[in-house]
Formats: sequence, structure tokens, C-alpha cells
Amino acid sequence: MNPKLKKLISSFKDNRLDAFLVTKDINIRYLVDFPASESWLLVFPKKIFYLTDFRYVLEAKEGLKSVTVHRYKKSFGDSILSLAFSSRVRRIGFDSRHLSLASYQKLQKIFKERIKLIDTPGIIENQREIKSQHEIKQIRKALKLNLEAYGFLKSVIKPGVSERQVLRRLEAFVKSRNAEFSFPPIIASGPNSCYPHAHVTDRKIRNNEPVLVDMGMDTGGFKSDLTRIFFLGKIARPVAKVSQFVKAAQEKAIQKIKPGVRASAIDYQARNYLSKRGLGKFFGHSLGHGVGLEIHEGPSISEKSPVVLKEGMVFTVEPAVYLPGKFGIRIEDMVLVTKTGCQVLSRHPKFDQTLPPST
Amino acid sequence: MNPKLKKLISSFKDNRLDAFLVTKDINIRYLVDFPASESWLLVFPKKIFYLTDFRYVLEAKEGLKSVTVHRYKKSFGDSILSLAFSSRVRRIGFDSRHLSLASYQKLQKIFKERIKLIDTPGIIENQREIKSQHEIKQIRKALKLNLEAYGFLKSVIKPGVSERQVLRRLEAFVKSRNAEFSFPPIIASGPNSCYPHAHVTDRKIRNNEPVLVDMGMDTGGFKSDLTRIFFLGKIARPVAKVSQFVKAAQEKAIQKIKPGVRASAIDYQARNYLSKRGLGKFFGHSLGHGVGLEIHEGPSISEKSPVVLKEGMVFTVEPAVYLPGKFGIRIEDMVLVTKTGCQVLSRHPKFDQTLPPST
Repeated sequence: MNPKLKKLISSFKDNRLDAFLVTKDINIRYLVDFPASESWLLVFPKKIFYLTDFRYVLEAKEGLKSVTVHRYKKSFGDSILSLAFSSRVRRIGFDSRHLSLASYQKLQKIFKERIKLIDTPGIIENQREIKSQHEIKQIRKALKLNLEAYGFLKSVIKPGVSERQVLRRLEAFVKSRNAEFSFPPIIASGPNSCYPHAHVTDRKIRNNEPVLVDMGMDTGGFKSDLTRIFFLGKIARPVAKVSQFVKAAQEKAIQKIKPGVRASAIDYQARNYLSKRGLGKFFGHSLGHGVGLEIHEGPSISEKSPVVLKEGMVFTVEPAVYLPGKFGIRIEDMVLVTKTGCQVLSRHPKFDQTLPPST
Repeated sequence: MNPKLKKLISSFKDNRLDAFLVTKDINIRYLVDFPASESWLLVFPKKIFYLTDFRYVLEAKEGLKSVTVHRYKKSFGDSILSLAFSSRVRRIGFDSRHLSLASYQKLQKIFKERIKLIDTPGIIENQREIKSQHEIKQIRKALKLNLEAYGFLKSVIKPGVSERQVLRRLEAFVKSRNAEFSFPPIIASGPNSCYPHAHVTDRKIRNNEPVLVDMGMDTGGFKSDLTRIFFLGKIARPVAKVSQFVKAAQEKAIQKIKPGVRASAIDYQARNYLSKRGLGKFFGHSLGHGVGLEIHEGPSISEKSPVVLKEGMVFTVEPAVYLPGKFGIRIEDMVLVTKTGCQVLSRHPKFDQTLPPST
């Protein structure tokens, strides 16, 4: 049994669980390294079942080691009931955020009190927040390519080129490296940059404006997520000024990151810095989020986050200022919490030269 | 108010609803033609609210006509409570399949009996099953490109070329037409074709074997989904024989399609035909599924489907035989239910020449 499954099973006793039902694809992938689809994982202390149907059973049998592939016929619930009964399992943990109300009710109807479903939200997500050495290595690989892609864009982003043309060139670059985007990239020129989640348009990039690019790489599992601003020509004073503030807010936050500090305190560092300069109300989202198998995962770095930072966490730090109708500036890097502080994973002297100009 | 919203609202009286809460992105897109993300739609008889947060509020305001964009601050539930209260709304419909147990419990806690959540599953999905003329036109457009792509593949799929190389060429083709895949294509050569959901590999295609290609196009919303087999060189007799049976099973099913017939009876036509030839146990999935904004939607064409066919439904007919370790044959077309029968939407004399050889 691999260490991730072992860790999950060792947490059973906290909630007096006999088993755990994993209903979210990406959590299954995390635990058994298999790209689950329309399948569930039933984790007993000494045996793991992968519940799937006809369509996936052959490849599951070939791809899954030390896991019993169970082809369900009637329903997930009936299979769970019979597997649990033969193992004298009574209390099965699950995560209410990853089970629809309809599925929950269906299971309850089949189980009829013979099995209890115990809601223990976040057990696997909390585990995923702490990255292993192997996972950090994969994230670094994605980040390296991400920074190279930004280096590549320096020769692409020019006045007269449309956002969509930039996207096409970027797609070809990523394809040539056998990678994929971890989400559809944002390429937002001039006023388009004021939308936090701008869509790529046919707008032609003009001289003397900022171009915000937010993209992430997926080089085979663990992901990256970075935002850079490209400054073309002569940058207007307000743009330069805001960029400087956003960058400084990011630095304030990064300096405070270390194990034991509250995530909300990190968010506060950046938010307070911007608020003091009258820009707080234009920074409407949280400061950051974990990145791993998912592009958005724990820990949440926000005003209300209950998280206390731990060594091995990897997350974004992305303060921003969006001035409606004018422009937006977001700067996003990824950090790794170390024993004594943090390491910014996304700085590289060779590729990372798209920081805002000093004013 | 558009006809889709009107139809939804007209169904309120069946369940004595005062409002409906749409929690699934694609259903929001269907109703208001806006690419929702992490947002909910609250439909009152005379007013529609789009609930979203800071990140999406600007573009939602610009993109949504006749819909009030409501930026929620505390939570979805608090916003719904205040909007419902000011409109004297007490019974809100929702779909338990598209709401997590956790979200449901959170809403219940906020509503405290002041608002009742009424589970009315499938209201919007049932509406989506019947395609409008405009939607059928979009599906035809996707299918036309899909067939062209199969025409293109005739010159690409050759002995010595790997599945992944075929995929790369296909990707370039689709990109050149400004389209997207509606799902990751399946390109399964020789024995790989025995996996219903095969992944593309580096296996080189050999002479004298079948190559199964399952792909769909998305030309801006409504999708297509087709499977063809490419036969290279001299085809072994069992492959030709099975192909012939699968094709005949498909024809049997298609001939029975018309309004008023049960979907399960259509499934039976194909399944029974294959069973009589000893191949039923190798056809482990349902005969077909609706296609529209989603690649898999209603109606389900399966043994247990409760659906009765209606004019305007569009679905796949895809009988198959998978012989483990040997090969698999699936033939998938898309049909439109007409007033008196059906029209196969995916036949085109110019491009569609990859049917199995007659034996």
C-alpha cells in the first residue's frame, strides 16, 4: 500500500471510520495514480476497491496495482453494500462536497441504516496540501516550462498583434514541448486587463499599454499558474504606479510566509498595503490558492482562511488591482513553504524578465 | 424573456414553485446563453438574477441581457434569502443531482424553513432534449466538420504511423478550422480498439488491422460525436464479420426510431440482434445518448431508459462489440427524430466513406 493510502487509512481512527468512499476523480488519481472517470474508490484498511463499469474495467485492471477492480452492475450503492457487508464495515467516511444530494439519498435508501455514511470533509484535500518531494519536482518542471513560455512571448507580444494571434503562437509553443495548458490562458491587452477572468479576444495589442498574461502548464499531472504583465512602449504613469504597488504588496506578503503563520495574515499583508494606498476596493479576490493536481486547491490564502501554513505547502501569491474600464494589474508567483520561510519557485534569471518597470 | 426561460417558468405550476435555482453551469448557459462559471441563476417568474462574485461581475454585466447581475458577498445562500424574501418567494425548485450535499445543507441552515427547497430533477435537462431549429443547425455544422475530419484522416491513417501522430495531425486540422474537439479523441489501433474508452498511445498502426476513431467537434456550442473504423489492408474475416453485424445492428435500431417509441425498444433492437449472434455480452454499454451543449446528455438510449422518443430529439446510435485482447468495433452515428421517423444526420456522400467493407 502506498504512503498516501496509508496516511488516509491512519486518519480513520479520528472519526472511528471502517472505510472511506472517494467520490472525486482527482482524489482517486491522487491516491492510486490512475485517471479515474465516472468511478469511485472504496478504501478499507487492508483492501482497496475501484468501482467502475463495463466501459473502464479493462484498462482499470491493467492500470491499477494493488487495487481490486470491481465492476458494478446494479449501482454503486449495491456494490458498496455487498463489499462492506462481507468485510463487516459499518461506518464509511465520505466528503459531502463531492457527493450530490441525489447520490447521497440514493445511497441512504440502499443502505437502510445498515451502513452509516460519516461526513468527514477535506480529509484527502488536507493531505494534498502538503506536497511530497516528488510532487514538488513535478511542479518545478511545470514552472520551468511556464517561465520559458513567458520568455517566448517576449518576441510575440507586439503592437498590431491580436490577443488571439498571441494565443495561437503560445498554443504551438506548448504543443511543441509536449505539454498542455492547465487552464485556458488569459491574454488581456489594455482595458481588457481590468477583467479578472478575461476571455481572449480579437483586439489588437497597441503600443503604450500593459498586456496581462495568466497561464499555467501541465507537464503530466502537477500544474503551475503564473501571471505576468508585458509593458509595451511608454507606460502611462498610473499603470506604472499601480504595478509598483502590486509588486510591493506581493513582496510584503511573501516576506511573511513561514510555517505556523495564518494564511489570513499573509492575505492581510498584501491587502492592507493596497488599502492604505486607496486600492483595496479594487482587489476583490483572495491573495492566493494552492496548486497541485488541480489548478485551484488548498490552502486558500484569503481573508477568512482558517489555514495555518505548514512546510511543503505550495501556493500562489497574486495581489491585483482592477480599475474598471481602465486597466488591471495582477502579479502571480508560486511559493513553497520551507522549514524557516518560503522559496519563490517561479523566479528564473534567464526567462523571468517581464516584471513591471521601476518608476 | 427568451423562449427557454419562458418554458421553464411555465413549468413552475406543476410543482407549485415560486422560483427555480439553476446550479449547473451548462444549464445556465442553455437558459441565458452566457458561459457561467462558479455562478448560479435564480429564476423568478418576472425577473432573473445571475449570482456571481467579484471576479466575474464585470463581464457578466456586459454579456447578460435582461438578467440582473447580483454580486454576492457573504454567500449564495444569504443572497438568495434576501432576494427571495423581497419577492415573497417561498418554494424554490432545484435539481438534487447538481447540488452537493454540503451546499444543500448550507442553504438549509441559512433558510431555516423560511424558504423551501423543492427537488424537481431534470426539468431543464428534459427541456434540453428537444432541439430547436437553431440548435439543430449548429449540430449539423459540427457534424459537417466532423465528417470532413474523417475524410482528412483517410490520407493520414497508414501503417507505420503512430496513434499519437494521427492525433497531432487531427489537432492541427481542427485548429485550422477554428473548431475544438468536444472530447479527447479516441484513436485505437488493432487490439487497442477493444477498450471502449481507449487512450491514445504511441503504438504504430499496422497493416491488416482496424483503427477505431471516436471524435466529436465543437464549433461554438452544440457538439457532435461520431465513431468510424478505418480498415487497412486485408481485413481478417472475424473483424469483417463483426463489423458487418455491428453495422446491421445499427440499421435495425435506426429503422425503428420515431416519435412515440420507447428508447429502450431502440436499444433492444440492436442488442437483440447482436445477442442472437452470440455477441451480446461483448456490447456492455448503452446504445446511445443525447448530444447537444454536452457531449453526453438526454435522452438515454439504454435498456432501462424511461424515455419515450419525441420529435426534435438528437442522439447517437452506437452499437459495439469489444473482444478483449483482440479488437473492438463500434459504429456511431447521430440521428434526429422527425415527425414520422428519423434522419441520420451524419451521412455525407463526399466524406463518409469509411464504413466497414462488405464481406
